[in-house]
Amino acid sequence: MKLILLRHGQSEWNLENRFTGWTDVDLSDKGRQEAAAAGRLLLEQKILPAYCFTSYLKRAIHTMQIALAAMDRDWLPVVKDWHLNERHYGALQGLNKADTAAKYGDEQVHIWRRSYDVTPPALDRDDKRHPRFDPRYAALTEDELPATESLQTTIARVRSCWEELIAPALRHYGDVMVTAHGNSLRGLAMMLKHLTPEEVVTLEIPTGRPWIFELDSRLTPVKDYFLEP
Amino acid sequence: MKLILLRHGQSEWNLENRFTGWTDVDLSDKGRQEAAAAGRLLLEQKILPAYCFTSYLKRAIHTMQIALAAMDRDWLPVVKDWHLNERHYGALQGLNKADTAAKYGDEQVHIWRRSYDVTPPALDRDDKRHPRFDPRYAALTEDELPATESLQTTIARVRSCWEELIAPALRHYGDVMVTAHGNSLRGLAMMLKHLTPEEVVTLEIPTGRPWIFELDSRLTPVKDYFLEP
Repeated sequence: MKLILLRHGQSEWNLENRFTGWTDVDLSDKGRQEAAAAGRLLLEQKILPAYCFTSYLKRAIHTMQIALAAMDRDWLPVVKDWHLNERHYGALQGLNKADTAAKYGDEQVHIWRRSYDVTPPALDRDDKRHPRFDPRYAALTEDELPATESLQTTIARVRSCWEELIAPALRHYGDVMVTAHGNSLRGLAMMLKHLTPEEVVTLEIPTGRPWIFELDSRLTPVKDYFLEP
Repeated sequence: MKLILLRHGQSEWNLENRFTGWTDVDLSDKGRQEAAAAGRLLLEQKILPAYCFTSYLKRAIHTMQIALAAMDRDWLPVVKDWHLNERHYGALQGLNKADTAAKYGDEQVHIWRRSYDVTPPALDRDDKRHPRFDPRYAALTEDELPATESLQTTIARVRSCWEELIAPALRHYGDVMVTAHGNSLRGLAMMLKHLTPEEVVTLEIPTGRPWIFELDSRLTPVKDYFLEP
């Protein structure tokens, strides 16, 4: 069984250096090219999934659609799950990273970005950016809806997607592809590779590069590697 | 409850005037524009589905993806089902319509295209166009895999998708969108409007125009209409 992880490429806000989190910004042209290149690479190497998962955010959804089109596998089932969303960045979402550093100090921003269990300031419940105003999350309970997240709380909800959806799909379909975000993919990598919190906070996953996990029948990785163009 | 039917727009083979059927040709630029215009129209009229279905063919899948992007609803669940595919055109698939008429005669071609229960010549089992060689149909039984279809047999398999997937989704989610093909949408219209075979063979469904069915709690249409730009 193979699990293919693919981090979405450049988005419009990467270009602007803003905290994105759950903000639903699209891929840039470069990001679309990265997705197509990843799909072509998977096709060339004949690593073809039978079942796919992505988040509720269009930069990951479009990465999946573009990669599947490049593989001529548009017809594959794609399940969208909010548990694979990027970490929610709370009240920092939409702010420029340089402005945030000027306001709160470099050290504080570093702690928010690189600690395991510290959350950025929460969104106010009445802030129009709060996910309770977004129809895509209408079915979520108050407890599920984050106003901010640490890497730890992000990984906790990624774990439920792994256990309830991805692991069963691997057992049933064999090869599975997931297109998602830096922090949700860190969560999958942490579970698969038994990383410590210290290891996972420093893990940098390249964008647009398929990361292949070869798994045994107990879903333990035998080896993992990034596909080289 | 509303059911939104959307027939895909122009494909690359419409331009070439070839029999398409299950051949997986993509939309033309005009077809992509038609899909985006349909999505914008649905958004303007605030007719927004909660659940979506499309076929296994990329001209319908891309119509869905483009329309949802225009509605900023990329995150909606989209189930792909081969039962919504276009009618299988058997050995005519890939042939130019003018050449086919020259070979078999206008009258015969008219019968194949416009009769309810006549099938075009079947694909040979060893013909490389046979769907048994296509990985997307690998899970289908021999009985399910068509080598040719009449409108009647097409509608019979569309009915199973209606009964097993679309009708339950309408009851559960309320508003449902289906992007599909001329003949599979004829099937849905035949069931909903209780058309006779004579009526359904002459039913022409415009491309890229959302067809709205307002349904009562028993899924009987109260009224149906095409959205006007």
